[in-house]
Amino acid sequence: MSPFNSVNDMILEQLAAVVSPDNLSTTQADRQLHAQDMSNHPAHLSEVVVWPTTARQVADVLRIANEQRVPVTAWGAGSSLEGNPIPLFGGIVLSTERMIDIVEVRPEDFQITVQPGIGYKDLNEKLVRYGLFFPPDPGANAAIGGMLGNNAAGSRTVKYGATKDNVLAMEVALTDGQLIRVGSHAIKQSAGYDLLHLFIGSEGTLGIITEATLQLTPVPTVMTSVFAAFPSVESAVAAVVEVRSSGLDVAALEFMDEKMADLISREGGADWGDQPALLMEVHAAHEETAALDMALIREICEELGALQFDATTDPAKRKIMWQARHHVFETQVRAFPGQRWQVLDIAVPISAFPALVSHASQTLQVYDMFGLMIGHAGDGNLHVSMPYKDEGTWQRALKINDSIVYKAIELGGTSTGEHGVGIGKAKFMAPEHGAALEVMRSLKQTLDPNGILNPGKIFPTGT
Amino acid sequence: MSPFNSVNDMILEQLAAVVSPDNLSTTQADRQLHAQDMSNHPAHLSEVVVWPTTARQVADVLRIANEQRVPVTAWGAGSSLEGNPIPLFGGIVLSTERMIDIVEVRPEDFQITVQPGIGYKDLNEKLVRYGLFFPPDPGANAAIGGMLGNNAAGSRTVKYGATKDNVLAMEVALTDGQLIRVGSHAIKQSAGYDLLHLFIGSEGTLGIITEATLQLTPVPTVMTSVFAAFPSVESAVAAVVEVRSSGLDVAALEFMDEKMADLISREGGADWGDQPALLMEVHAAHEETAALDMALIREICEELGALQFDATTDPAKRKIMWQARHHVFETQVRAFPGQRWQVLDIAVPISAFPALVSHASQTLQVYDMFGLMIGHAGDGNLHVSMPYKDEGTWQRALKINDSIVYKAIELGGTSTGEHGVGIGKAKFMAPEHGAALEVMRSLKQTLDPNGILNPGKIFPTGT
Repeated sequence: MSPFNSVNDMILEQLAAVVSPDNLSTTQADRQLHAQDMSNHPAHLSEVVVWPTTARQVADVLRIANEQRVPVTAWGAGSSLEGNPIPLFGGIVLSTERMIDIVEVRPEDFQITVQPGIGYKDLNEKLVRYGLFFPPDPGANAAIGGMLGNNAAGSRTVKYGATKDNVLAMEVALTDGQLIRVGSHAIKQSAGYDLLHLFIGSEGTLGIITEATLQLTPVPTVMTSVFAAFPSVESAVAAVVEVRSSGLDVAALEFMDEKMADLISREGGADWGDQPALLMEVHAAHEETAALDMALIREICEELGALQFDATTDPAKRKIMWQARHHVFETQVRAFPGQRWQVLDIAVPISAFPALVSHASQTLQVYDMFGLMIGHAGDGNLHVSMPYKDEGTWQRALKINDSIVYKAIELGGTSTGEHGVGIGKAKFMAPEHGAALEVMRSLKQTLDPNGILNPGKIFPTGT
Repeated sequence: MSPFNSVNDMILEQLAAVVSPDNLSTTQADRQLHAQDMSNHPAHLSEVVVWPTTARQVADVLRIANEQRVPVTAWGAGSSLEGNPIPLFGGIVLSTERMIDIVEVRPEDFQITVQPGIGYKDLNEKLVRYGLFFPPDPGANAAIGGMLGNNAAGSRTVKYGATKDNVLAMEVALTDGQLIRVGSHAIKQSAGYDLLHLFIGSEGTLGIITEATLQLTPVPTVMTSVFAAFPSVESAVAAVVEVRSSGLDVAALEFMDEKMADLISREGGADWGDQPALLMEVHAAHEETAALDMALIREICEELGALQFDATTDPAKRKIMWQARHHVFETQVRAFPGQRWQVLDIAVPISAFPALVSHASQTLQVYDMFGLMIGHAGDGNLHVSMPYKDEGTWQRALKINDSIVYKAIELGGTSTGEHGVGIGKAKFMAPEHGAALEVMRSLKQTLDPNGILNPGKIFPTGT
């Protein structure tokens, strides 16, 4: 039996009074559009979708939901990969799709304040005129609120950090209907508890982010992209470790196995052959620096037997390379019609990356499973994608998934580097965190005593 | 009346059984050595000092203290500047001075795991052989545990971040005697709540850090230090904003007013004249990059009328410059014998730095007070030091202090950029955080229900 109440007519009236009837829907169509993210977790319908337009409205929706014991699940762009915004217990989906305003630009401080619904790609387009950009790039057109909620990352994290490293201040709505401000517009702050980072990555289970002040970065003068192919997974992965430990400040360092390179070459719009490969990027303020960095990267790759090494600063060529990388999930889906995908996301210390990749390869072999490997290798972050059609194959994929996750934890890493816990990783929270999981639970209890915020996520059920 | 119990013989016996009698002292001398930090806050004696040597011992001391309702205040090197480790309510001072081991070095991951008592300067000496360093540099020989507790920073934060940005994982002792592990050895993690950052900067009020895995940085190939003098505070501060908004990735960008430059020239071991000045540093992987960065900095400074511009890569000269900067507090104390110091630490967004400096100058003038200004200007961080001998002068200093702090908050900044809240900044927590302060209080209540951890800090009393 659900511990929550249903959304009855009285609650619908209260919600409509807050967000206006135009910003509320109980239609099947709208609820279905907010029932499933890009993961393979089963869809679940909410009872109502609301689209607040102001922070005050978000807070009032939370207050009503809390009083009425109705669950609220925040929704950004629906581009997450662990079922993070699926309303498992029904109730209210609170979509930020109509909160896309830029509140303030402070170009001299490299800061912008936005509502949470804006997509990071849309944001970066608007920032072009300032010569600034927001570095995290998780793919799709993820909403800033979702990126903060999941602490999303992407290929540029190796240089610029994850979403949590590129935000200074936020406004957050709490279950009691209060709005609080966390962080500071100063880039340094030692004034009490770091609530900013407590809410980031909490997947809407502690509060809902209603505004964020992001730390921007000047667009680099010179951007060089490099594609390098290697004779073996081992040599490609060895190059990752070498580049990182050389101290080179690369802006992206992506690994893909031979099957992934082949798939992208056939279907993904880039001619990358069928060998294990690295895709790299270097950002520099001067041509000379870029050339020196590039020479060092070339030397490392050639020493490790690189079969191919293409470097380019041409914007059109760079765009093709990175689009091929960023659209890899869509490419997979297109190339394997009718299949669903189990997508794994783990991260380990960089020195353990070879062991992780080797364990993943072996596990795929043992289970006789087709899988594609790609990852933000510079961060020790690996993704393994396994297509399946039938229950039996899916069960095998899940076993492989578990084996690789436990290996990552054993290697000092984490069950999720950037996709968040959502539904799929909840069962690994105890193995990963041990007694600290109870501390997380106590914080959840403190900030959301009725458990209305995104129930069923992060914490393993039945424990 | 104190809400706490005194440390009686039974409790002393329990503590001695945990840490061994050799690592416990009730002598006046030992208690006095742990009664005051480097701030001007009055000393307060604890009842007993314990020096645990293991994490388990720290946790057991907390368990006993919690059961017996005795306060525990963590002590690192005693180098803090806001009274952070003063045992205001007596009880136990838990010193980490005998927890100075290096637990593990992982040079290929740029990681080191240490006990919390090790000084960051000692640590950096041990790291020389690996070509790595731990960037935060708050001065003195602050202990890593204290740096984490206060989220200390220093002059290199503009490039490398504060302490909170250079740590991956910690072990923390809780009041119930549990040890938990937070964070991950992977540089990316999206697995639940960010407990790591919750404990960092909590000043020992939520738990006590017993081990930390730090993120290290390769020692740069080329380090160039620059001293530039300007005709006015305005032009020096304008140069700060220009350098930052040029996108130059400077490793240090320090401002000092003419009185501070003069004091250092007379007493501090560097010949910096008596004009407002900037001290900068650029870290680069290549000579060519360093030269290009330096040319741009020189151009900015000369356009703003710099009277002097000296750049050097000579290690001996650089050392003299940075020692003069780092020992500025000791220089002040030596130059004004018999005086005490009110030292202010605030930070604002970089664009507001000129307004902050101007407000500080005017306020000093209005109150006819002598004050020295220095600061990590690249971070928008300013320190104002005011000497005093008598109560009347101190009261004036406090009024100036308050005025500048409120101005910093008004400008979108913070009441403390790097010294922490301790005793002196507690009264600004409500103006700075508003309703978020109650959330901090609820977290404190959750993790330390009996309030035994460093009582009297961070939270304003009587509210």
